[in-house]
Amino acid sequence: MAGHDAVEVIAAKRDQRQLSDSQIDWVIDAYTRGAVADEQMSALAMAILLNGMNRREIARWTNAMIASGERMDFSTLSRPTADKHSTGGVGDKITLPLAPLVAACGVAVPQLSGRGLGHTGGTLDKLESIPGWRAALSNEEMFAQLESVGAVICAAGDGLAPADKKLYALRDVTGTVEAIPLIASSIMSKKIAEGTGSLVLDVKVGSGAFMKDVERARELARTMVGLGKDAGVHTVALLTDMATPLGLTAGNAIEVAESVEVLAGGGPADVVELTLALAREMLAGAGVEDVDPAEVLASGRAMDVWKAMIRAQDGDPDAPMREARESHVVAAPSSGVLTRLDAMAVGVAAWRLGAGRAKQGDAVQDGAGVVWHARPGDTVTEGAPLFTLLTDEPERFDRAMASLDGGYDIGPHDAAYAPSPLVIDRIS
Amino acid sequence: MAGHDAVEVIAAKRDQRQLSDSQIDWVIDAYTRGAVADEQMSALAMAILLNGMNRREIARWTNAMIASGERMDFSTLSRPTADKHSTGGVGDKITLPLAPLVAACGVAVPQLSGRGLGHTGGTLDKLESIPGWRAALSNEEMFAQLESVGAVICAAGDGLAPADKKLYALRDVTGTVEAIPLIASSIMSKKIAEGTGSLVLDVKVGSGAFMKDVERARELARTMVGLGKDAGVHTVALLTDMATPLGLTAGNAIEVAESVEVLAGGGPADVVELTLALAREMLAGAGVEDVDPAEVLASGRAMDVWKAMIRAQDGDPDAPMREARESHVVAAPSSGVLTRLDAMAVGVAAWRLGAGRAKQGDAVQDGAGVVWHARPGDTVTEGAPLFTLLTDEPERFDRAMASLDGGYDIGPHDAAYAPSPLVIDRIS
Repeated sequence: MAGHDAVEVIAAKRDQRQLSDSQIDWVIDAYTRGAVADEQMSALAMAILLNGMNRREIARWTNAMIASGERMDFSTLSRPTADKHSTGGVGDKITLPLAPLVAACGVAVPQLSGRGLGHTGGTLDKLESIPGWRAALSNEEMFAQLESVGAVICAAGDGLAPADKKLYALRDVTGTVEAIPLIASSIMSKKIAEGTGSLVLDVKVGSGAFMKDVERARELARTMVGLGKDAGVHTVALLTDMATPLGLTAGNAIEVAESVEVLAGGGPADVVELTLALAREMLAGAGVEDVDPAEVLASGRAMDVWKAMIRAQDGDPDAPMREARESHVVAAPSSGVLTRLDAMAVGVAAWRLGAGRAKQGDAVQDGAGVVWHARPGDTVTEGAPLFTLLTDEPERFDRAMASLDGGYDIGPHDAAYAPSPLVIDRIS
Repeated sequence: MAGHDAVEVIAAKRDQRQLSDSQIDWVIDAYTRGAVADEQMSALAMAILLNGMNRREIARWTNAMIASGERMDFSTLSRPTADKHSTGGVGDKITLPLAPLVAACGVAVPQLSGRGLGHTGGTLDKLESIPGWRAALSNEEMFAQLESVGAVICAAGDGLAPADKKLYALRDVTGTVEAIPLIASSIMSKKIAEGTGSLVLDVKVGSGAFMKDVERARELARTMVGLGKDAGVHTVALLTDMATPLGLTAGNAIEVAESVEVLAGGGPADVVELTLALAREMLAGAGVEDVDPAEVLASGRAMDVWKAMIRAQDGDPDAPMREARESHVVAAPSSGVLTRLDAMAVGVAAWRLGAGRAKQGDAVQDGAGVVWHARPGDTVTEGAPLFTLLTDEPERFDRAMASLDGGYDIGPHDAAYAPSPLVIDRIS
């Protein structure tokens, strides 16, 4: 690898020049090896955040992060593969019903997931509320489960894009998370290294999402779709609403329960709608066009895959749901129509109740979270339950309620409520 | 000190907001204590470099750095004090004749200096080429020497603006040196903490200077003069030319020798001119208006102070100059008029010969450097010596010559040569 030095690379981006392929390859490799220090990479990350990178630079940066570790290969599987990535939202349990549903439709789903940080939950945290379930699988176990069950949701191993792992932790403490080139390359390096044949991106937009603004979300989606195509991965992005939280629950065990309702043919309409929309995209991406996921969901076959998937990772899908020790009901202060429910307010409340963590490595409570008893457009009655707050530690209720305060509006019974579409745009 | 967190402060500057007084106080104090990590401060430094700071922010930042350590006080001295700071140039030995000259005029000079890094030399490196001379003085020694001799050039102690010391080292490796707010606050925090009553800034402009561009140099000068005034230190800045190196030598012992020539009443005209110009500013700043430094220089009294100053720090001012083991003469390739001599080319050549260091802590060679035998405007003769290169390690000659190559122009005997003024502007 050609010799460069860190200050030269930082200065180039600082001075609004493009980084060369050789500079990018060098700086990612040197950072992974420890030859570029954290304080140098954070200065570079800030320069990238403020001065940007073009498509070539982002693609090269992504490839260099992939090259920092191993790359999985599922091409010898008997089925095509498809994966989904969500940029994170409140109540976003979609992966849980989606992976078994798509597997039941004949496409293998190798879903490497993460734990939550801050107000958005993590898929692994939710699944770990199931007694016995384990997130860590060897590559061999993952491959075998994909062949036998068709779906795996597990933790990404340390071997996958280690440069990204190191850079992600650094960005978190240096105010450099919000750079589209760095977000896009972080997500796509993991997804491409993971070896999926096709990929659907669920890019969340709104108060509860990382991207508050539809134009920035669209830019992120376009950047990621471009990276996927450049890497030979069939990639489509849906921009979906995250002004309102998904479903009726935000937490861990309570989101698993809601997901199981969907797999059983029930569940909140928005969760079902988004699960089916993403399933259709994943099936199309994998070249499976003659299967209707709605029919498969209704048939119960997705539930069968769910149970097999949980059991394959030592979980008990029939065990009783873990419950929080304490609950507190927040009543509706007036009667009328719920015209707004803010995803961020709900997410922060769930987090403060113990469903999420403040810093990496913290434990989360399985039973903690927020249940809301109405969705925007629903009628509410003064004094009737509007939220149920759940936690093992009742001293958490006050701060959770403070977050919900101002996080919803109740209008008169004849209030005009125009629901916003769940899927805002599709980028392919 | 109010509680903040590093990401909040970084994000504010990243998003082009002003930092509050409380944020600035907190981040400097926390960085000094180690509660803000290097990787966080470097991200903040890059955000400051790219998004700037206003005058209030820079003043507060400077004060916070001063408050991170001790502050010296020379108000009980029997004489007024004045100091000079140069932003660094090639062949810039001015401090050496200037400090004893101003002391001989009745104004005490407490000059805390640094070592060189890169192509610009350091005053302490030059003085350390004098046998026995030591840079480290206690505060008590410094005070006593100021009273008895009137001039001290020594290393800044660890107690002065420790936040700046830490930040300066960080900026050096993170590509964040070139931020005017950070340059200005770094220089001024040390100079204000040092306790001088008045201050003259020599802001260099041109190829061999840190500031290549006169507008940026003027902005830096204005910023520093404003900081000085805000702190109650009488401050004036001269913008001076550094397209051409100063004098006829760049190195360590050879620059001491040239300085001694000036103190003896000779020496290159530009070194004498700039020494006198800065001396006049320092005297005026200290309120001494009836002394002509040119007369004092001619009288030999400045030389007396020089010798006393060197002896007070255990140096032998009469010891023979340390000489490099090897020399190499570069002859003029043609006859005519030297129309350009590039300061950067000469500085890099001297550095490559061993007069400077590549990284902090490296040793420098006392005898190494470059002597040029003509200044722009002088006639040169083909085959006659144009440069003499000096080093202990002859393998260094080739790279030094490569730096000089293209670093000068020889025009025809009738070439129009318009000397540029040495003092470009004065900011007060």
